[in-house]
Amino acid sequence: MKAEIISVGTELLLGEIVDTSSPFIAQHLANLGIDVYFEETVGDNPKRLANAIQTAAQRSDLVVLTGGLGPTEDDLTKTILAQVVGRSLVPEPKSMAKINAFYAQTDRPKPQHADLMGEIISGATVLPNEVGFAVGMLLATDQCTYLVLPGPPAELQPMFEKEAEPRLAQLNHRQQIIRSRVMRFFGIGEPALEDRLHSLISGQQNPTLATYAKQNEVTLRITASGTDEQGVEQTLAETARKVNHLAGSYFYGNGDDNSLEQVVVALLKKRQLTITAAESLTSGLFQSTIANVDGASQIFAGGFVTYSATTKEQLVGVAKETISKHGVVSAETAIAMARGAKRRLQTDLAISFTGVAGPDSLEGHPAGFFWVGLALPDGQAITKKVQFAGTRNAVRDYAVKTGLKLIYDQLQGQ
Amino acid sequence: MKAEIISVGTELLLGEIVDTSSPFIAQHLANLGIDVYFEETVGDNPKRLANAIQTAAQRSDLVVLTGGLGPTEDDLTKTILAQVVGRSLVPEPKSMAKINAFYAQTDRPKPQHADLMGEIISGATVLPNEVGFAVGMLLATDQCTYLVLPGPPAELQPMFEKEAEPRLAQLNHRQQIIRSRVMRFFGIGEPALEDRLHSLISGQQNPTLATYAKQNEVTLRITASGTDEQGVEQTLAETARKVNHLAGSYFYGNGDDNSLEQVVVALLKKRQLTITAAESLTSGLFQSTIANVDGASQIFAGGFVTYSATTKEQLVGVAKETISKHGVVSAETAIAMARGAKRRLQTDLAISFTGVAGPDSLEGHPAGFFWVGLALPDGQAITKKVQFAGTRNAVRDYAVKTGLKLIYDQLQGQ
Repeated sequence: MKAEIISVGTELLLGEIVDTSSPFIAQHLANLGIDVYFEETVGDNPKRLANAIQTAAQRSDLVVLTGGLGPTEDDLTKTILAQVVGRSLVPEPKSMAKINAFYAQTDRPKPQHADLMGEIISGATVLPNEVGFAVGMLLATDQCTYLVLPGPPAELQPMFEKEAEPRLAQLNHRQQIIRSRVMRFFGIGEPALEDRLHSLISGQQNPTLATYAKQNEVTLRITASGTDEQGVEQTLAETARKVNHLAGSYFYGNGDDNSLEQVVVALLKKRQLTITAAESLTSGLFQSTIANVDGASQIFAGGFVTYSATTKEQLVGVAKETISKHGVVSAETAIAMARGAKRRLQTDLAISFTGVAGPDSLEGHPAGFFWVGLALPDGQAITKKVQFAGTRNAVRDYAVKTGLKLIYDQLQGQ
Repeated sequence: MKAEIISVGTELLLGEIVDTSSPFIAQHLANLGIDVYFEETVGDNPKRLANAIQTAAQRSDLVVLTGGLGPTEDDLTKTILAQVVGRSLVPEPKSMAKINAFYAQTDRPKPQHADLMGEIISGATVLPNEVGFAVGMLLATDQCTYLVLPGPPAELQPMFEKEAEPRLAQLNHRQQIIRSRVMRFFGIGEPALEDRLHSLISGQQNPTLATYAKQNEVTLRITASGTDEQGVEQTLAETARKVNHLAGSYFYGNGDDNSLEQVVVALLKKRQLTITAAESLTSGLFQSTIANVDGASQIFAGGFVTYSATTKEQLVGVAKETISKHGVVSAETAIAMARGAKRRLQTDLAISFTGVAGPDSLEGHPAGFFWVGLALPDGQAITKKVQFAGTRNAVRDYAVKTGLKLIYDQLQGQ
């Protein structure tokens, strides 16, 4: 079943409103196995709206119209659709009664076109509006099916979920079960991950794999469908195994609502390990990121921002000679910072960040170059060197995530 | 001039992303006097994309294409547009050099299709990408003009404003001068600011005033137009004066590309004052925010994250009795933290944050309650108490901005 969404409203074309309804509807249709091929926005213009409806009817099985159901002169959706399908508008008694009761009860004058909100196209199925007055409808014609919904998300969303969705599921004769799984990766770009997963992505039908880049991370959504729940789940699990085989060293967790800091704080809690930090490059961003996780206080009591060479010596006891011999941006200084922070606060782990946020270079290192140091419970310390490219903010964000991934890998025993 | 916006990307049709770029472009086109008649979204499908471009070219003078300029197999926009207009793709030397330099500099492998990002359609005007690699373009054909922009808003917005907008203004033969000024406010909500400015906003024609809420701040864009540069600038200046009269105590700076931290770091540099921090609630976010400003090292050397009661005592010398008598979330503890940090690092100023990020309450204070302490050069200390409502992240962000505004007001002598 091919679907198309037409959003009606000049305010959308002026950019005064961000359209969140189309994504909402598209997501729900995707879950029903209905593919959305086009989304379109037209203004409150009779001719252009009629054209858009006609074009959509020719190329799609389901045409969803949102907006333009209100009581003003500009609200044309029902009137134009009635013209296009050659049917008349008829009052829907329950909605009419509701509208009349409201205006009888308040001091507000009843707008001229208020009755239009309670009308439907002859032969349509009524979709009641719980929140507002504009009644929705589902209308089957020989050419296609129309779903007509009010514009305001507060009215549209409950109407879609309660009234439209069950009917659409039936219409689509879909016994199919659709399930998806989100896998999260750090340390690899989206194109490189796609390259690695090429054998799984190319020519994909079921499951489908789609990658998304966001703030230095990449997520992968695996979607499988079938008629048998167990079979679908098995497909997902097998695909995830294959993905981990191809790119597992960059993987750190599952789920849409997940993050490196959540995974790391959970691991530290589980192992009952405490952590602190000495931050130069990141200047507190690591500690602030950790503390964003609810309950972080169980594993984190505080730490140091050692932005200058002096505070590196003063706050976490880095030796003057270490800095003069190796520079502030060095493995040796990174290790000394981490060990010093760990010693001062007697934690199990301590992490450090030293590098060049940019735009200028430092000690001969270009912007984006940094060291992460990690002091471990057994007294050992490890480092990681990275050359990244991006704005100051992006470099810092990447450094914090590099640190989190380093801890993750250690705690996972990689 | 009739315009149309085509957003390209299957992720949009799946509802995984909300399209904020179309409203952004539509608003800016409206300001240029260019009418948007249609907006359309198509997936990463060669045939449907080609059809959408052909339809748009027939009915519109300007066709804006966004998205699908990346380095993956799914990124088709340039390839398909080249086919539709019957021209070839050619490398754009500067962009190519940037792409090659990036992959030479980092550890990341160069993706197979990376070069496509640096190609343009033969004869097009190059629109450089300041933020990413995908080069944009403006292409005039006999039928219509195409504007091709990258999908990510962080790349699209500066490219549109700096590269595309002036050229479109010319194209639209617009003699009108349009100038705008952005004023920035903290500590007042968008509706409350609108109320204060009601006399200026209601019935506005020229200048127009529009408020925008973003991350606990409100910005106000004043836009004036006319045929005479001096008159337009005078209108802006007069309006800004009136705004400051009505809401000046919340104002902190001008400009789209500005922030409280930039204003505060600039003031500290100008006054040659150094600062440090002892952060509990914000756990390093203040220091990380300050350090995001290029050149912050002149006024900031480092500081403390004192998340637990113990680190408050250990790192900045808050007396056990202060905490036991007044609690960690108190004016007394906030002052002791700020004074302790100032003493330890011998700075001119020191700021402290202690409060309840939530979701749970603490010491009888609800989530969102916090104290900011500020130790001043003359040995005095001031505090500010705030009750905010929001997520953990929003509370922290609001606290950091409250601290920055407190410093701003002090340094401005308010």
